[in-house]
Amino acid sequence: MAVDQKSEVRGQRSAQAISNTQYPISQVVALAGGVGGAKLAHGLAQQLAPDQLTIIVNTGDDFEHLGLLICPDIDTVLYNLAEVQHPQQGWGRADESFQVLEETKRLGHDAWFRLGDRDIALHLLRRQMLDAGMSLTEVIAALARRLGVTHLVLPMSDQSVRTIIHTPEGELPFQEYFVHRRTEPTMLGMHMAGLEQARPTAAVSTALAEADLIIFCPSNPYVSIDPILALPSVREAVARTPTIAVSPIIGGRALKGPAAKMMAEVGADVSAVGVARHYADLLDAFVLDQADRRLVDAISALGIRSFVTDTIMRDKTDRARLAAEVLSFAQSRKPVP
Amino acid sequence: MAVDQKSEVRGQRSAQAISNTQYPISQVVALAGGVGGAKLAHGLAQQLAPDQLTIIVNTGDDFEHLGLLICPDIDTVLYNLAEVQHPQQGWGRADESFQVLEETKRLGHDAWFRLGDRDIALHLLRRQMLDAGMSLTEVIAALARRLGVTHLVLPMSDQSVRTIIHTPEGELPFQEYFVHRRTEPTMLGMHMAGLEQARPTAAVSTALAEADLIIFCPSNPYVSIDPILALPSVREAVARTPTIAVSPIIGGRALKGPAAKMMAEVGADVSAVGVARHYADLLDAFVLDQADRRLVDAISALGIRSFVTDTIMRDKTDRARLAAEVLSFAQSRKPVP
Repeated sequence: MAVDQKSEVRGQRSAQAISNTQYPISQVVALAGGVGGAKLAHGLAQQLAPDQLTIIVNTGDDFEHLGLLICPDIDTVLYNLAEVQHPQQGWGRADESFQVLEETKRLGHDAWFRLGDRDIALHLLRRQMLDAGMSLTEVIAALARRLGVTHLVLPMSDQSVRTIIHTPEGELPFQEYFVHRRTEPTMLGMHMAGLEQARPTAAVSTALAEADLIIFCPSNPYVSIDPILALPSVREAVARTPTIAVSPIIGGRALKGPAAKMMAEVGADVSAVGVARHYADLLDAFVLDQADRRLVDAISALGIRSFVTDTIMRDKTDRARLAAEVLSFAQSRKPVP
Repeated sequence: MAVDQKSEVRGQRSAQAISNTQYPISQVVALAGGVGGAKLAHGLAQQLAPDQLTIIVNTGDDFEHLGLLICPDIDTVLYNLAEVQHPQQGWGRADESFQVLEETKRLGHDAWFRLGDRDIALHLLRRQMLDAGMSLTEVIAALARRLGVTHLVLPMSDQSVRTIIHTPEGELPFQEYFVHRRTEPTMLGMHMAGLEQARPTAAVSTALAEADLIIFCPSNPYVSIDPILALPSVREAVARTPTIAVSPIIGGRALKGPAAKMMAEVGADVSAVGVARHYADLLDAFVLDQADRRLVDAISALGIRSFVTDTIMRDKTDRARLAAEVLSFAQSRKPVP
């Protein structure tokens, strides 16, 4: 169905797409996780027609809460593409209220995950559609349409895959570690529960096979991008395609989330170089922040050509600007210096 | 578990119960449906200790909406007993907001059933508990506890029983007929879907067997009380016990809901007499409004003794006053004049 939807979108947007020849790249796939990924995806959606861009989103941090399926990464991407996201915090909706959550608290529920009312509305509709037998891919396509999102947003898999963080206190499901425990426990390692049974959706496999360029958004390498790459045949498909990554680490820190802390805990170099090295066998090009200009040589030494710019996306214009630079550099095909 | 809960409540409240000897009746069961039933149940809860009163509530108008199980009659009873009900309208919570519903509408949901945010909080917790394998009886006991309700509120059955209204347009599930279609279609008849598989819960059977008095609250005879009576062995248990009903019809009209319209459509006498006749073989006593004083002889002619009072419950005090009068008249054992 997602593939049909894409064809349909292609049909609808063909006139516009013909005029959009700003980039000769015809098919771009973005791999995205949470906030940073959603921001760049939004930038790419400003630069590319709906028939040029597919956003494949991590579902490893999905979880059940209050009897609802929450898909934090997908929802953050949808909200950003629909431009209804909360302007400051990295998750949830603008103009949000918390009436339901407050009442569940009064009724004794341990409301450690801050679900807003508008957010719950989406979760209720998703739950209902899943209960009716729709796949997650079909549900996300339907929710995207209802939010007015015209670019294709695909969950990486219709099967449940759950990131489990290994800590000295034992194994914690991702949101338990990330939100409830505020990433305090040390990460000793991680695994994806359900990975053996999971496969990429047909829509994901098709998008990867057709892609001229695959962009690794500035998302957490371990818990946002790796789960996508871990699905059968995805890494192989990515390896066959030109790729570019945007570093989620700037000046040794992550703008958002536990990426830097995790890198340190697993003994990686907490820097843009560490990120590039993590993806090294898959990467053709790398975008790093101007604050990390001194790291260009180290990136080159990995056989990866790099582009230095301001990678902090403060607003909608920043997102579009960075997306344009990423697309432009990716197709410039400059050799490694 | 509900029976255990009741025993537990009995234990906790025994000291208080001993001092509460205002009524020699030791075990009262109230059969209740929607608003009128909830109001009298609240009055009874003001007059009787938790170990003296069990409220058995209709589940025939329960339904699934937005993927949630809504139990309108049970919830109305719980909200009234917890004194958190909306002060004017017959359903829902005080200080309610509709943020979730507004957002579902924006996302294309046909929001014909007005679910408020606080209400949704309860429905989410119920859904979660049911999904975890708890029975409806156990779930309602847990929600009652969380709302601070100490009197025992029992769903009539843990099996799904659904009132279906027969109309010239076909068969309509009750809420579809009642809320979505605003009771406009003519009622030609009705049936209870699922009745063959349903049975009263053990807690309901126990409460009925132990009752010294069964009160038919001023609820719709067809869609609130009859579904309870239709369950296997309930009618027989009620027939063995002293009973009293409060008329939901005053001056030929129902204060709330479609009772009068339904009575007219099935060719019944739209009056307190019509109600008494509907229950005749089960009734010992009947309470009718002062506006219907002239109907006392007709009630007597049915072999039912009657009590005339102001049956309109405008506020908490009215509810307590009517409950006291009902209890007092029921045990006065005055003969039919």
